[in-house]
Amino acid sequence: MPDLMPVLARADQNLPSSLDKLFDLLRIKSISTDPAYKGDCRKAAVWLVEYLQSLGFDASVRDTPGHPMVVAHHAGANPSAPHVLFYGHYDVQPVDPIELWDNDPFEPSIKDAADGRKILTGRGTADDKGQLMTFVEACRAYKDINGALPCRITILFEGEEESGSPSLKPFLEANAAELKADYALVCDTSMWDRDTPAIAAALRGLVGEEVVITAADRDLHSGLFGGAAANPIHILTSVLAGLHDDTGRITLDGFYDGVEETPENIKASWETLGLTTEGFLGDVGLSVPSGEKGRSVLELTWARPTAEVNGIWGGYTGEGFKTVIAAKASAKVSFRLVGTQDPAAIRDSFRAYVRSKIPADCSVEFHPHGGSPAIHLSYDSPVLTKAKTALSDEWPKPAVVIGMGGSIPIVGDFQKMLGMESLLVGFGLADDRIHSPNEKYELTSYHKGIRSWIRIMEALAA
Amino acid sequence: MPDLMPVLARADQNLPSSLDKLFDLLRIKSISTDPAYKGDCRKAAVWLVEYLQSLGFDASVRDTPGHPMVVAHHAGANPSAPHVLFYGHYDVQPVDPIELWDNDPFEPSIKDAADGRKILTGRGTADDKGQLMTFVEACRAYKDINGALPCRITILFEGEEESGSPSLKPFLEANAAELKADYALVCDTSMWDRDTPAIAAALRGLVGEEVVITAADRDLHSGLFGGAAANPIHILTSVLAGLHDDTGRITLDGFYDGVEETPENIKASWETLGLTTEGFLGDVGLSVPSGEKGRSVLELTWARPTAEVNGIWGGYTGEGFKTVIAAKASAKVSFRLVGTQDPAAIRDSFRAYVRSKIPADCSVEFHPHGGSPAIHLSYDSPVLTKAKTALSDEWPKPAVVIGMGGSIPIVGDFQKMLGMESLLVGFGLADDRIHSPNEKYELTSYHKGIRSWIRIMEALAA
Repeated sequence: MPDLMPVLARADQNLPSSLDKLFDLLRIKSISTDPAYKGDCRKAAVWLVEYLQSLGFDASVRDTPGHPMVVAHHAGANPSAPHVLFYGHYDVQPVDPIELWDNDPFEPSIKDAADGRKILTGRGTADDKGQLMTFVEACRAYKDINGALPCRITILFEGEEESGSPSLKPFLEANAAELKADYALVCDTSMWDRDTPAIAAALRGLVGEEVVITAADRDLHSGLFGGAAANPIHILTSVLAGLHDDTGRITLDGFYDGVEETPENIKASWETLGLTTEGFLGDVGLSVPSGEKGRSVLELTWARPTAEVNGIWGGYTGEGFKTVIAAKASAKVSFRLVGTQDPAAIRDSFRAYVRSKIPADCSVEFHPHGGSPAIHLSYDSPVLTKAKTALSDEWPKPAVVIGMGGSIPIVGDFQKMLGMESLLVGFGLADDRIHSPNEKYELTSYHKGIRSWIRIMEALAA
Repeated sequence: MPDLMPVLARADQNLPSSLDKLFDLLRIKSISTDPAYKGDCRKAAVWLVEYLQSLGFDASVRDTPGHPMVVAHHAGANPSAPHVLFYGHYDVQPVDPIELWDNDPFEPSIKDAADGRKILTGRGTADDKGQLMTFVEACRAYKDINGALPCRITILFEGEEESGSPSLKPFLEANAAELKADYALVCDTSMWDRDTPAIAAALRGLVGEEVVITAADRDLHSGLFGGAAANPIHILTSVLAGLHDDTGRITLDGFYDGVEETPENIKASWETLGLTTEGFLGDVGLSVPSGEKGRSVLELTWARPTAEVNGIWGGYTGEGFKTVIAAKASAKVSFRLVGTQDPAAIRDSFRAYVRSKIPADCSVEFHPHGGSPAIHLSYDSPVLTKAKTALSDEWPKPAVVIGMGGSIPIVGDFQKMLGMESLLVGFGLADDRIHSPNEKYELTSYHKGIRSWIRIMEALAA
């Protein structure tokens, strides 16, 4: 690997300007779920295209009915090396509750942690702008030194990952020939811990549903009507409370169809990772596993399905008190899926269950928010083996292959629509507070992330 | 009654200017629950004082730690007539959801209903500015014709009725000698129907509680933590769903202590009122009584206690979807009390129940919002009998004596602290949408309400 060391050294030299570039991107408020930020999402896409063009990519903003895609192409130095598609997303989560942020979420900064670590703060640092920029900056270092990339690269950046990716499937379908590569690199996941890089080989699926229950045709005074008129908040709480039984199992008909028990050898390998309930939950101020009884926190978050209420609202929620019986009550509910659980069947079962609990004079509406099955990747493909070695060379401890509690629907779409497997490598940490106030990314994640992609590209091209 | 007819005729002549005066008061945004409107509450108090002074009352704004009281005195023409305290409240409910109003809630108007009725629209028209002004305008007509009032009148207007009346008890205590009268007139209730005036003789009590459940020390990603970390929305929905059993009874320990079955003769008298489930619930788009099984809607709303969730919120409630496990979830819960149910015991029982359902690593906070026992007034006092006749003379149908689902804590406070019984007469209608968007008051309620007070004052002074 004659070319590797100069490229790594160049990435080190570039670091200050790599940070400047990342901060420029972080300042763009590309919140995809809120229509008020539509212009900012486009601005982020344009910024990425212009930057990729400056690195020699043939890059363009590609319109969709929602936020635009970014597609970029670059030839590789070695025509026999594989063609790789890199995927990331430039959209970010909303920032509320804004009052819990220590700094402006869109004014990124570098801060010193107590133990001397440096952290990058701001919305999108870890999810996913910081991560996608590790790859872009790896490409830059290559170009700086070699004037070329080691293999042919296509880049796809999405702007709707945090809002269910409504435009993604149609876009992949319409541009399949252009986007099909030998395999995909996806950078939207975490390390095992600060010293141990990880490759994710199992991901939970996701079904999202918004439920709106309507009772009376207006808000009522609870004195005049209380005791006789249906209260939609009562119906909703009863519906949601009934989703779990006393053992933490989900009660929906057919919910566990396709859920297999985790093989003992896999469970044994997880145990060697040394994660304890105290360590995992203690980090966020908790101590009691809340899900199905008798299972480890790794099994609960990697290999078991869940039902979670992500939001609930109804009635008077302001200061003081208002003795009202609301006309409507709403909740956002999501299910994490494993094995071969069918998203459509689970959505149907949930809707049938809710309908069965609605009194005759009340009504319910459902609004779907995305659905994707769980993903299982091969634990011993040559690509995974090469990446594992490359990562192990960069970080203090050897890379591990793990499961993941979150959902990355794109991986299933690549598999189904482009016949392309994905390699999931990311440099986030469990305490990055993605989706929460005070999101951060470690400077080490960014720096060694760039270096990791240089090593992985080199290994894949060899 | 030589003086009565000219005074009634004067009230009829005054009506256009009585409406102008009411509209001036309605335009003041005196929302007591929201600190942003503190200045508006004072403005309403000052407006009332200045208007009462112009009618010859010795009136003043009286400061409290919260919103001010209005106290006004006027001598009576007949020194042997009783001294009467009139109570109303100038504060109003919040107006959200503002988008459901057809008009600006603070720009009152007169509209034509389909059947030719005229209605006054705006927040506070029925609850309680329109109602308290019926009495003020009755006094004005009296003064215009006779230059005097038939009996000695003290007026007390409160500005915190919609926010639990925190300053009321201390104010009554500190000013007991000044406020004590022979009995109180309270105008904050409804007619039986459009043609039938009503005197309320039984009122439910109220206990309000805000509950905040905290799980993790931050919002969590439901992919990373879902299945292992406690979700406070799940705990809250389970707590709230457990408040009622399958028969609609409330499950709290000791909740029904002090609740008596309604005597058969009272139930029989209610049946003669001809109220049907279809009529009562049909008006608001419902049809199925939701509370305890096997009881009429009148019994459910007048004679049975309730537990209602008036508001609930937690997690992500904006547009789109956010796969978050919230750190906190909150609800506002109220209990309507009957018989001799003890507000303090019910609050304690509720808190003990909630605490028993909170996992060891989660916590709960409670914020009390008012508490008052149920009230029972005599069905056959001379005052009630005189008022019943006076009302029956004014309206198409004879007055009825009824129970009431709502709570008017002042009635209990007058009883306990000033040894003074209340006469509850009001001119609202069930479809006035108090506490809801598009609150209204019938022009007939206002006009005949003014005339009703003239007749009642005359009858009481005789």
